Amino acid sequence: MTRLWCELAWLGGERAEPGVRLELEGERIAALPPASSPEEGDERLAGVTLPGLANAHSHAFQRALRGRTHGGTGSFWTWREQMYALAGALDPDACHALSRATFAEMALAGITCVGEFHYLHHGRDGTPYDDPNAMGRAVLGAAEEAGLRITLLDACYLRGGLPSFRDRDAAAWAERVSALAERPRARVGAAIHSVRAVDPESARTVAEWAAGRPLHAHVSEQPRENEECLAEHGRTPSALLAGAGAVSERFTAVHATHLTDDDVALLGGAGATACLCPTTERDLADGIGPARRLLDAGASLATGSDSQAVIDPFEEARAIELDERLASGVRGVHAASGLLRAATAGGYAALGWPDGGRLEAGALADLVTVGLDGVRLAGTPAEEAVASVVFAAAAGDVRDVMVGGRWVVRDGAHVALDVPAELRTVLTP
Amino acid sequence: MTRLWCELAWLGGERAEPGVRLELEGERIAALPPASSPEEGDERLAGVTLPGLANAHSHAFQRALRGRTHGGTGSFWTWREQMYALAGALDPDACHALSRATFAEMALAGITCVGEFHYLHHGRDGTPYDDPNAMGRAVLGAAEEAGLRITLLDACYLRGGLPSFRDRDAAAWAERVSALAERPRARVGAAIHSVRAVDPESARTVAEWAAGRPLHAHVSEQPRENEECLAEHGRTPSALLAGAGAVSERFTAVHATHLTDDDVALLGGAGATACLCPTTERDLADGIGPARRLLDAGASLATGSDSQAVIDPFEEARAIELDERLASGVRGVHAASGLLRAATAGGYAALGWPDGGRLEAGALADLVTVGLDGVRLAGTPAEEAVASVVFAAAAGDVRDVMVGGRWVVRDGAHVALDVPAELRTVLTP
Repeated sequence: MTRLWCELAWLGGERAEPGVRLELEGERIAALPPASSPEEGDERLAGVTLPGLANAHSHAFQRALRGRTHGGTGSFWTWREQMYALAGALDPDACHALSRATFAEMALAGITCVGEFHYLHHGRDGTPYDDPNAMGRAVLGAAEEAGLRITLLDACYLRGGLPSFRDRDAAAWAERVSALAERPRARVGAAIHSVRAVDPESARTVAEWAAGRPLHAHVSEQPRENEECLAEHGRTPSALLAGAGAVSERFTAVHATHLTDDDVALLGGAGATACLCPTTERDLADGIGPARRLLDAGASLATGSDSQAVIDPFEEARAIELDERLASGVRGVHAASGLLRAATAGGYAALGWPDGGRLEAGALADLVTVGLDGVRLAGTPAEEAVASVVFAAAAGDVRDVMVGGRWVVRDGAHVALDVPAELRTVLTP
Repeated sequence: MTRLWCELAWLGGERAEPGVRLELEGERIAALPPASSPEEGDERLAGVTLPGLANAHSHAFQRALRGRTHGGTGSFWTWREQMYALAGALDPDACHALSRATFAEMALAGITCVGEFHYLHHGRDGTPYDDPNAMGRAVLGAAEEAGLRITLLDACYLRGGLPSFRDRDAAAWAERVSALAERPRARVGAAIHSVRAVDPESARTVAEWAAGRPLHAHVSEQPRENEECLAEHGRTPSALLAGAGAVSERFTAVHATHLTDDDVALLGGAGATACLCPTTERDLADGIGPARRLLDAGASLATGSDSQAVIDPFEEARAIELDERLASGVRGVHAASGLLRAATAGGYAALGWPDGGRLEAGALADLVTVGLDGVRLAGTPAEEAVASVVFAAAAGDVRDVMVGGRWVVRDGAHVALDVPAELRTVLTP
């Protein structure tokens, strides 16, 4: 049994608890008794220990766009052209290397579980690889080597985009995805890329395949998506997806930025999750989603780094509150603990790991320790540790990261990979 | 002569120049010839070297509120009550210690020049200290010890607030401030705290005293400030200050968030500066200022960390663009070089150092080197270094900082102070 003694640990309340011993057995937390001081055999974790942070919406390969798409003017739609140029150039080996470096950067930021919304399926002209899941397996292998838990959200993409994104039809998508095996730290879920890319009947096929699994879709990221959906189908994207049987408590609406009141009620009433990606939504000029109204309607929240313009789960969490302040002029509609819940248990549940993202007996031993000794957080009093971490920590404050009982990051460094060197290799033209 | 060889240096254009030698004499840059490789006697600076970053609006003492004002609900106005409680508890020694630790954190973030908008003047009940400028001198000493260039913007505050903020009248303010001596790396400017705190006639007295010096004021941070000013004076804050003779090319409107079209034309037409403090404006639910319209009208921009909720000049610079994206749905109305100009030369000029914040012959030798070897920036191609630094760097990527030819930060550590230890000492209750 591994025993960790946490100076402070966040167990889900408004404040962190001082002095908690985590007793681990295999990949799980067996018990977590209070303990005012470490005993012999305890490993001491200074700072505040959190459950592992979930990145519930990632396109790992888009890491290669960071810093390279800011020179010109434009909109979401012009950015998308740049993304397509990158996506078209990736084969399984390149996708593996880029994803591994990106996932390793996520680990350093405290991310223990990633939902990879994956739509790079085939060769450049649309021809399947010899293994039709070569790209998905490249992503799964990348996560395993980087030490992350992963849910591969294999996205059905039938119309528009690039040939390499598209399966022949939803049945072909389902046949391909059914051949992907799960592993102890890897699950397979489904995604409907968007109402642009998948017609309602095909969406129903995907939703049926996804019974018992997580099902994600990009929903109402841009006003134009709503306008086109209304013109074609006479319904909003949320209503269309609900009509196809996609919206349930296993459904995650990614972005959920431009929702009608009916959409909010629909997603909330189903107990669905809204995955906000605030740094990307700011970067892509998407807008500010109605996070508080979604919660009030019964939805859950999760967060994602999406385009990888920034990989910092603390910034994603606080931006839910801070961006709503910009829109409303009101502070404090989300407590720090609620934001942290979105970034942990909320994301884990949305990715099909309901026993993760929480420090409790029986839960997965995925955890993160944030140092309080750097300049951003030095002097934080114990009773303000949760609010300080949510509102003032940065990725660089993460000291130690464990996934399923195994250390992935120690003292700020990845245990297996030289992450800057990997990034340099994959990103240097 | 000190000779530095920069792998990349930003000389003000859209891109960084590869291979630049900086030849320094005393506190200034004597020459900066291109040089494809370092020669014997050159000190090599890897990464990208920028002019020193200016923090044009700081209330250093508010660093003690970071992470402690997020627990509840409320608005700008409830936050202000918490700030008053802190401000009322500071004497010159406490102010010196807290300011020094905060300025040192700024140095680590690449800030070489700070504008301290200073209104903590007197004892708790309003009684002047034996030295009526004891508090201002505490701040000046703190900046000197932390290695920063400073402009003390001594704020006239006559109505409202705490007794310790208030001078008897504008003449008393002017008499007090006139006793403050400048030093080679310290200038004294003036501030009109706000139209709440200073009546128009007194504002005129301050503006007259400030002839030839920087003059700053908080302007239209909150809609209520505008409403109260209109109710009392029948004019907007910008129009009131212009009527008092305060608005010129030496004037900086801090925040400038809620401006009328006439306000924008007035500030732009005068060639004034708008100092945006986006991380604070987001934290305090102020709103998003019209940065692009101000520039188009002829104003300059600068940036400030203000409440110290965040000390990261890269985040302030990019937030000018990114927050406008949230409001407009359009990307790229500010080029990366323009944002960096606001954070460097724009701030220096607003603080009365027109020969700083730029890498050119004759300019002050204030500079910052940002490493491109961390996980956020690894693999950045040289031709994208400016955009990558502006849109993806964090304070933690700063490696070396020089102020007036003297190193303040080397390899990410302050040369004179243990900054986390100082912060812990001043911030632990």
